[in-house]
Amino acid sequence: MTQLTYAKQNIITGEMKAAAAYDNVDADELKKKIKAGVAVIPKNVNHDFSPRAVGAGLTTKVNANIGTSPDHICFEEELAKLDTAIKAGADAVMDLSTGGDLNAIRDEIIKRSPVMVGTVPLYKTASLMEGLGREILEFTKDDIFAGIEDHCRAGVDFITVHCGITRSTVRSLKEADRLTGIVSRGGAILAAWITQNDMENPLYEYYDRLLEIVYEYDVTLSLGDGLRPGSVHDATDKPQIDELRVLGQLARRAREKEVQVMIEGPGHVPFDQIKRNITMQKELCDNAPFYVLGPLTTDIAPGYDHITSAIGGAAAAAYGADFLCYVTPAEHLRLPTVQDVFEGVIAARIAAHSGDIAKGVPGAIEKDITMSKHRRDLNWEGMIKTAIEPTKPLNIREESEDYKKDVCTMCGKFCSLALQDKI
Amino acid sequence: MTQLTYAKQNIITGEMKAAAAYDNVDADELKKKIKAGVAVIPKNVNHDFSPRAVGAGLTTKVNANIGTSPDHICFEEELAKLDTAIKAGADAVMDLSTGGDLNAIRDEIIKRSPVMVGTVPLYKTASLMEGLGREILEFTKDDIFAGIEDHCRAGVDFITVHCGITRSTVRSLKEADRLTGIVSRGGAILAAWITQNDMENPLYEYYDRLLEIVYEYDVTLSLGDGLRPGSVHDATDKPQIDELRVLGQLARRAREKEVQVMIEGPGHVPFDQIKRNITMQKELCDNAPFYVLGPLTTDIAPGYDHITSAIGGAAAAAYGADFLCYVTPAEHLRLPTVQDVFEGVIAARIAAHSGDIAKGVPGAIEKDITMSKHRRDLNWEGMIKTAIEPTKPLNIREESEDYKKDVCTMCGKFCSLALQDKI
Repeated sequence: MTQLTYAKQNIITGEMKAAAAYDNVDADELKKKIKAGVAVIPKNVNHDFSPRAVGAGLTTKVNANIGTSPDHICFEEELAKLDTAIKAGADAVMDLSTGGDLNAIRDEIIKRSPVMVGTVPLYKTASLMEGLGREILEFTKDDIFAGIEDHCRAGVDFITVHCGITRSTVRSLKEADRLTGIVSRGGAILAAWITQNDMENPLYEYYDRLLEIVYEYDVTLSLGDGLRPGSVHDATDKPQIDELRVLGQLARRAREKEVQVMIEGPGHVPFDQIKRNITMQKELCDNAPFYVLGPLTTDIAPGYDHITSAIGGAAAAAYGADFLCYVTPAEHLRLPTVQDVFEGVIAARIAAHSGDIAKGVPGAIEKDITMSKHRRDLNWEGMIKTAIEPTKPLNIREESEDYKKDVCTMCGKFCSLALQDKI
Repeated sequence: MTQLTYAKQNIITGEMKAAAAYDNVDADELKKKIKAGVAVIPKNVNHDFSPRAVGAGLTTKVNANIGTSPDHICFEEELAKLDTAIKAGADAVMDLSTGGDLNAIRDEIIKRSPVMVGTVPLYKTASLMEGLGREILEFTKDDIFAGIEDHCRAGVDFITVHCGITRSTVRSLKEADRLTGIVSRGGAILAAWITQNDMENPLYEYYDRLLEIVYEYDVTLSLGDGLRPGSVHDATDKPQIDELRVLGQLARRAREKEVQVMIEGPGHVPFDQIKRNITMQKELCDNAPFYVLGPLTTDIAPGYDHITSAIGGAAAAAYGADFLCYVTPAEHLRLPTVQDVFEGVIAARIAAHSGDIAKGVPGAIEKDITMSKHRRDLNWEGMIKTAIEPTKPLNIREESEDYKKDVCTMCGKFCSLALQDKI
């Protein structure tokens, strides 16, 4: 039984109550949203934690990607990233490990994480090939499904599956005038597999088998956007939209089988195309929750892509995106460090909250009102306490000569707020 | 003779040629924009540098505020901020000094700056009172104009004047349900002065005198938004709009007298209200260039307000704002350091460029295309060279094990771009 099954039977579960309480909404309302497929509660029946919901009318959630790569493997560092992401306020983590003992890392992350955990099972499938002395593309259909089943059993709450990479959409890709082809790892692996084997993507061809597996564990499907644009030039082009259409159809089939589903989205998108991207996803996917990676509004800011992503993420959230995957300052350059993870989560949370104010999520602007009252009253303790992240502002304030004064060194005796009495 | 006078006489000046060349636009087109009042070239006849234009169809420009405060006075530090702002790519700096030898700091900044310099002459007027042993509000009408004339003579290229703080708009403010009252220093000083003296704002009452003074030096007026919201709660309220209406009327009068003019805007604005703010300014001010401070899309991120401001700034620029005043990580906490200035300028430039791509400024997306080609080709040298700021991405890359490889430690052998050959 999935949360969607319960919702269809009009049963309010403990998970719904916990998730509704977290967002301070009514559990019955949340149940209706789950029933309509516009909200999901990613929580594996084998994973014990207090879940949060993703979807319409709820606070925009933030995911942090962690995990090893083939060229940077340090178990302890990834666990430190997990702890840091949680401390910084992430609502979800994805373990995207592709190096070292993948099972051990994944299992430890699931065990330690107080928030939902997502994975891309295909990474393990491809990684396994190497252990067997084969090329990474030499996996079979059954290897793919075995990998997925393994992740479900282990307690993963949501999995990215690139079901929209099909013979047809790969053809669309080859015909397109793209600058950066495929930038999704999972998407690239499957597109290469399809091309090399001249076969259809098993995740598409045998989609019902996938639905059966995940249903058993109530694993939420995150339908991956393997053809997302990797440059603003490539945004909102035919391959991207063709794939989105496929994902919309697959989302419908998932809901029919009572499998919770969300849709992944771009990527690199010019600011003026973000609204259209969100509207299109909502239309083509019957308002399924939308999980966006970025979007980045320019390609030219490596080292600062958490900022670029905050711009696009805030716009996306304001227009209706439900879930933001963070981007760190290390994006496009190397695997993030613990510090990168921290900065990435904070930037994404600022974007999410900016979006929540804009789309009128209940309670969102109340935090800003509290902060502004503290500002008006020059109540520094209150300001620091209300800050989305209190450590950095406290440090900045403490560095200044006016630390013990009411005002700050920006204006000193010219403080406009201190002048209000005279107006 | 101002650039506007020349433009009205259909004369293309050397300043127009230089500014047009900087933005890679046609000088005759720029002349027409200046004539129509939709673009300005802030450049004092007494300041020798290669000017840039601000306005419609041009790249969005970025300003960095520097200068001492009563509680933090270090001449050398402010000059280091100037150098850093220039190195980071600022198109303008404003010397907002309110502590120390104000003339000496201002004159040295004007001398050293290769970009336009703005000031708020009222700060000096108010500061002077203290030197005379008076309260900061004890200045006269003539003191205000003497301060302005002094700044014009010194070579300042644009000045913020809070002409829209009037008896009427101050009444509007008092009647409004604001959380944070006035957060503009200049605005607060004038509103307090009006209240205390029960007199009209001389900058409004004797506006023609102001126009005469600045005309002589071709100083561009930046009509300050003294009533800008200081919290998202206060955004787009009656006092803000009342003041904007006044600024629209004053902008018209400036153009009639052939004085170049731009309009300042908020501030703190929820994401969903930004478009409306820009549209309203363009309508009420006959498309005069719009110079926005932020806007910040949430109040709760002190320490990270360069990110919050990048979100709002990108949206504002995309919708038609022409000039972004940076916000640093120190905003609301203390006077910025040299490092804060650097981070603030970079964040604002990312916002400006994101806006330029969105509003289709010629040549903007070309930079992204170049970057994306380098990414596709795994040309790391090209990527670093094309970056909006190359130092940080180079450092990040150099920290990783894959520094000498084609790929990076994010994906290693799973690099989607390296897999393209197989698709």
